[in-house]
Amino acid sequence: MNARSLYWETGKGCLVLLDQRKLPVEERYVECRSCSDVVEAIRGMVVRGAPAIGAAAAYGIVLAALEFNGGRGEPCDLEGFREHLAAAAGALCAARPTAVNLRWAVDRMMRRASEAIQHASKGERGCGSIIEATRHKLMEEASKIASEDVEANKSIGQVGLSLVPPGARIMTYCNAGALATVDYGTALGVIRCAHAAGRNVRVYACETRPFFQGARLTSWELIRDNIPVTLITDNMAGYVMKEGLVDLVIVGADRIAANGDVANKIGTYMLAVLARENKLPFYVAAPVSTIDLSLPNGSQIPIEFRSAEEVTNVGFQRIAPEGVDVLNPAFDVTPHEFITAIITERGLVREPYEASLKRVAGSEC
Amino acid sequence: MNARSLYWETGKGCLVLLDQRKLPVEERYVECRSCSDVVEAIRGMVVRGAPAIGAAAAYGIVLAALEFNGGRGEPCDLEGFREHLAAAAGALCAARPTAVNLRWAVDRMMRRASEAIQHASKGERGCGSIIEATRHKLMEEASKIASEDVEANKSIGQVGLSLVPPGARIMTYCNAGALATVDYGTALGVIRCAHAAGRNVRVYACETRPFFQGARLTSWELIRDNIPVTLITDNMAGYVMKEGLVDLVIVGADRIAANGDVANKIGTYMLAVLARENKLPFYVAAPVSTIDLSLPNGSQIPIEFRSAEEVTNVGFQRIAPEGVDVLNPAFDVTPHEFITAIITERGLVREPYEASLKRVAGSEC
Repeated sequence: MNARSLYWETGKGCLVLLDQRKLPVEERYVECRSCSDVVEAIRGMVVRGAPAIGAAAAYGIVLAALEFNGGRGEPCDLEGFREHLAAAAGALCAARPTAVNLRWAVDRMMRRASEAIQHASKGERGCGSIIEATRHKLMEEASKIASEDVEANKSIGQVGLSLVPPGARIMTYCNAGALATVDYGTALGVIRCAHAAGRNVRVYACETRPFFQGARLTSWELIRDNIPVTLITDNMAGYVMKEGLVDLVIVGADRIAANGDVANKIGTYMLAVLARENKLPFYVAAPVSTIDLSLPNGSQIPIEFRSAEEVTNVGFQRIAPEGVDVLNPAFDVTPHEFITAIITERGLVREPYEASLKRVAGSEC
Repeated sequence: MNARSLYWETGKGCLVLLDQRKLPVEERYVECRSCSDVVEAIRGMVVRGAPAIGAAAAYGIVLAALEFNGGRGEPCDLEGFREHLAAAAGALCAARPTAVNLRWAVDRMMRRASEAIQHASKGERGCGSIIEATRHKLMEEASKIASEDVEANKSIGQVGLSLVPPGARIMTYCNAGALATVDYGTALGVIRCAHAAGRNVRVYACETRPFFQGARLTSWELIRDNIPVTLITDNMAGYVMKEGLVDLVIVGADRIAANGDVANKIGTYMLAVLARENKLPFYVAAPVSTIDLSLPNGSQIPIEFRSAEEVTNVGFQRIAPEGVDVLNPAFDVTPHEFITAIITERGLVREPYEASLKRVAGSEC
């Protein structure tokens, strides 16, 4: 029943994305036939969610490798192939700056490409054959990234289960579900796992302006899975907490700094402040690929600013006067002191975050 | 340049309302020719904002008095007239439960009606003439409520001016402007006054879901007055405060309990919690007609719940899946300990609120 945000269509040799701009009104798919199609899809939020854009970018590298045609004839241009992949990697990483999973997946693909080229070059094979072998390895690696993501989410669900008491009313934010990942979800992974375990949960989904990921995507996913969900606007979160209608908060993450500061969808910080004021636990669910040990704290996480039109218009509907100034940060940073625990596929991470994040993510970075 | 939310059209004998559902895309006016037109307009948010619905309701009583036709012939039915007005008063007060200004204005009109009937009855006048005299007095009283509201707002502006340093960046919420009152505004009254005094202010307007009063109305008012305004979605308020982009917050109020707890548009509580976390002063601007000394604290303020469609649809656009549960409280209560001061036309009110509110409002209640 889950929605799969993306899959590789072998017959057509393209990446298929469920168009997240159209849901829930329309279930439409977009085919990416080139790396630049993937870049545009990430930038335009056809696909969004940190792990999902990571996996999409991995397939973007596959498409870049397939596109390269300097290797078919002679003289074979292996250096040109390398440069072509590097340019694709740069374009993909620049598509959206905040979520680190994008860069993580691209880096992993590029390492795989280097290894494959090096390995194939050792034999007596021609240049075209080396490129073909590399393409094959890249396809394997992208599939692996995608399937590992689903596995990681299921583990996150199991790890998080211990935090969800029977009958829990859980607030979530934005969409950290199947649509934000390859499948199953991080925050919604925990909720799915709790639901499957008979914990009888109810979800409060914040609509998440300006893109309405909570209203459009999270509600849609949960209704498909028959998980009870109540939709609220973001500014109702405080009321709902103060009235005692929720027991805990679980959100996803786009980047986690070494000290545990978390960048996530704009408004997450607000929710964390409200949760602490109302003495509610505030959990972040994310795979270790979201952890960026290279940044000491959240102040160094680049925040993406998006267009004014996302705020002034809802679809074709204008909701603000012409000429109004708009600020549209897509993410904010929640300081680690507001976070009760981080739920990863390798276990729960708690204060002191510096040490515990290094422990779970150290081998990755 | 200010927008006047309502006025009496003498020629047509009707109340004219600027349709706040259509702004800023369309500047349309709605004519109310009966009391039930006014009830519908208040319920449907053609007119909104605590002081504005108070004034509209006052004219609703005028229309009810004009509608009554049992007094034109004989036998004159003065008791019927009284009952007709009482029914109108009940319908108006029930239109929206949270803002106390509605009841305050209706009570004031009903007291005036009683006095007028009693006074006219003392003479040797016939029943029809008594009713005519009462209508005249009610019209005078409604005009007085409207003009006093404008004066109160200008005084609020003057009182609040001392709180606005030069170059201040002020966050406001919903619309507590000319449109929420008869003219000038409460929170926006302070901002207008500061702008006129050359304080060089910039406003951060939160869009205010689900009705978008901030995006549609506050931005529109401020742009018309050439006051710099930056529009943000509600979930960006925390980010903006944390980044040090605002210096103070000023909001309006729908009802203030005896201990200083304030009911205002849903999300105000969230803003107050964020302001305290970020060490920013949080001010409430409201006329004394908003103070309800009959309620010891905010827990007794009735909160209106509105339809799910306001959350699931933006105009004709559906943004949530069919069948999703929705919670749509229109207001929340901010505990007095989050409020730095309340700006009234009779001066600044600070802790201890119980004593200071009684001082400014005592003679009213």
